[in-house]
Amino acid sequence: MNTDNIIRAKYLIETSQPLEKAAQMMAGEQSCGTFVRVPGETDELREQFSAKVELIEELGTVPQPTLPGAKHAAANVPVQRAIVQLAWPFHNVGANLPNLMATVAGNLYELNPFSGLKLLDVEIPPAFADKYPGPQFGIEGTRKLTGVYNRPVIGTIIKPSVGLTPEATAAQTETLIEVGLDFLKDDELMGNPPHSPFEKRVKLVMDVINRYADKTGKKPMYAFNISGDVDDMLNMHDVVLNNGGTCVMVSINHVGLSGFSKLRQHAQLPIHGHRNFWGALSRSEVLGVDFQAYQKIWRLAGVDHLHTNGIRNKFCEADESVIKSIKSCLTPMLDGYPVMPVISSGQWAGQAVDTYNAINSTDVMYVCGGGIVAHPAGIAAGVRSVVQAWEAAIKGESLAAYAEKHIELKQAIEVYG
Amino acid sequence: MNTDNIIRAKYLIETSQPLEKAAQMMAGEQSCGTFVRVPGETDELREQFSAKVELIEELGTVPQPTLPGAKHAAANVPVQRAIVQLAWPFHNVGANLPNLMATVAGNLYELNPFSGLKLLDVEIPPAFADKYPGPQFGIEGTRKLTGVYNRPVIGTIIKPSVGLTPEATAAQTETLIEVGLDFLKDDELMGNPPHSPFEKRVKLVMDVINRYADKTGKKPMYAFNISGDVDDMLNMHDVVLNNGGTCVMVSINHVGLSGFSKLRQHAQLPIHGHRNFWGALSRSEVLGVDFQAYQKIWRLAGVDHLHTNGIRNKFCEADESVIKSIKSCLTPMLDGYPVMPVISSGQWAGQAVDTYNAINSTDVMYVCGGGIVAHPAGIAAGVRSVVQAWEAAIKGESLAAYAEKHIELKQAIEVYG
Repeated sequence: MNTDNIIRAKYLIETSQPLEKAAQMMAGEQSCGTFVRVPGETDELREQFSAKVELIEELGTVPQPTLPGAKHAAANVPVQRAIVQLAWPFHNVGANLPNLMATVAGNLYELNPFSGLKLLDVEIPPAFADKYPGPQFGIEGTRKLTGVYNRPVIGTIIKPSVGLTPEATAAQTETLIEVGLDFLKDDELMGNPPHSPFEKRVKLVMDVINRYADKTGKKPMYAFNISGDVDDMLNMHDVVLNNGGTCVMVSINHVGLSGFSKLRQHAQLPIHGHRNFWGALSRSEVLGVDFQAYQKIWRLAGVDHLHTNGIRNKFCEADESVIKSIKSCLTPMLDGYPVMPVISSGQWAGQAVDTYNAINSTDVMYVCGGGIVAHPAGIAAGVRSVVQAWEAAIKGESLAAYAEKHIELKQAIEVYG
Repeated sequence: MNTDNIIRAKYLIETSQPLEKAAQMMAGEQSCGTFVRVPGETDELREQFSAKVELIEELGTVPQPTLPGAKHAAANVPVQRAIVQLAWPFHNVGANLPNLMATVAGNLYELNPFSGLKLLDVEIPPAFADKYPGPQFGIEGTRKLTGVYNRPVIGTIIKPSVGLTPEATAAQTETLIEVGLDFLKDDELMGNPPHSPFEKRVKLVMDVINRYADKTGKKPMYAFNISGDVDDMLNMHDVVLNNGGTCVMVSINHVGLSGFSKLRQHAQLPIHGHRNFWGALSRSEVLGVDFQAYQKIWRLAGVDHLHTNGIRNKFCEADESVIKSIKSCLTPMLDGYPVMPVISSGQWAGQAVDTYNAINSTDVMYVCGGGIVAHPAGIAAGVRSVVQAWEAAIKGESLAAYAEKHIELKQAIEVYG
């Protein structure tokens, strides 16, 4: 069998059962068989359709089961953690994302040998590429639309998240683009509510942006949140397109793979992937999905921008994990599928050098809130401080040294540093 | 403000921060404000759009933070658990399921005061009913299509899960309906793979079922797994419909809310909701989503059948939790939205009496694998044993007493009991 026709998935497992037996149970449950043979389950069928256990790597023991409900082998049997890799023939599934997920991330989370099971990574065969073309714009397309090269696309979020009228949103947009921001976005809480009807918001915001673009030749990108039912999303996409907009945003976890794929098929604009609910999928060390697997699935579905968090963020994620996420987005998959990582949460000029040194790239969106709009010398100075910080990073200078020559950066460090 | 226009959500939280402060942070993050006021965030806006903390109920302390990454107040500060209820004005969101989820189950999972946060329940205002009509068939429609009344709809799953040809699937279908099963389903791993093309499988299976229906007047229901991209799902739905089929199945978590809603709008058949991946969302006591909230969202989206697991199952879920799930499905929401709970996993005649006594209803699907097909006197006897067990339950007799008068039940108890 050609390795190109294999689906692979890697898991962290925790169990008090013998590891080989536990791994075989995962493989059986997620392919043709269980331990009990059923009529019709011939040797040929098993040979052709069984998932194979390719790797078991012991990681050591933990004092007690992490998740409740697992069948404990016996009181004195240790609870072990291990990495397990399974492989499935492509022909078990076909090129179908929801069915791929049912195969690599389905019922197995409930299997009773496991007091922990997390999907760490997936390896997707090229046959999926025929069905799922991936990001339509990605990094290059986003740079072309924004006209920003050789540094991150710098952005912010319209705040307060909800409550602003379309007029107030447009007024805030005007302020934010006048100071040189490349990118603005709706909060994920702001969709199409009665107090800010989508069509009116798009029209008023795009009037401001279009006027600015006519005047300056630079068109900032605004990601309008179109999350919703499929037909509504397609219509809202068209509203954005018809008003000269250049980006739509989707809460990918709540819209889901099928609705997202439909939007991708229809889209003529980049899709900004907001990952709210990600904490629910990932915060347990031993349950859910690791970002390494997650980003591959969503790139396949065609997300152009994907949130990754930022270092020294306001959330719970450690810097090491954030950097791994950004790097995973910047690593080609199936020879391409370029997605632009979106760095946000508590970001200001201060994280630019460390981020750049860790990822060795400027192909990111860098979204700051208070780190720009609350700059002591004003929002324009806030934007300049972030641009300066990335200049320092690219030139290999320290933030402190560069701040000596750049007042806005210096001010930012004095306030936020 | 009318209580009918309020969205409510209840959470289990775990934090070492003061509970009031932590709860206010949730409310702020998920509505108009953060702790830092931003320009445009007027008092009027806050009054109209802030989420309110309606309830904080202390549950006691735990020895250490359960999830990693939380900001710990100080080494000697206890980690507390509590129930928190938040309320949002409907006008913050509008009738939009993905945006509702972004509001009640979005970024808040990553907030750094929390070493645990689980969505326990949601209260959905009637305004959502105008947009989301809910289950089209539900319990009554499923009974009408199957002709099964006054007892559960009894079913099984085609096995092995993958690898069977359409011809082999049809042959197995014939065996299973001849013995009197009301309901069959594809495994969630079986969609539209190269080795069992969907259209051919539907045609051959429905030939068998249609012939049987013509002969007997009883048409067993077969849930064909149509999970996939939106257009593919709509087409596959139509293939099932045009071949006389009476049910389609969807892996709801992987298809997602938007794609599912689109299918619901199009559907002329009941949609069987498979919840694979549910373990990833629910197995942690302090992360993810409780079934009580989950089933409401999917009923709103329009699922007709929803998997709930069964008591004494092969998975990790405790009986108490299973019973709570079944009961929650059977409890009306917004004066209706009837969904039929699907009881499965390790089920046989033996759980019928206890299940009935706990839920006081027969409005369930009761799906058995080995508990029917591996009955020592054959599959037909397996089906009869399950029917007999539910007869005993309804008549208020003990399983043991009823088995004395019913040989197939007696045999089942001897083997599985």
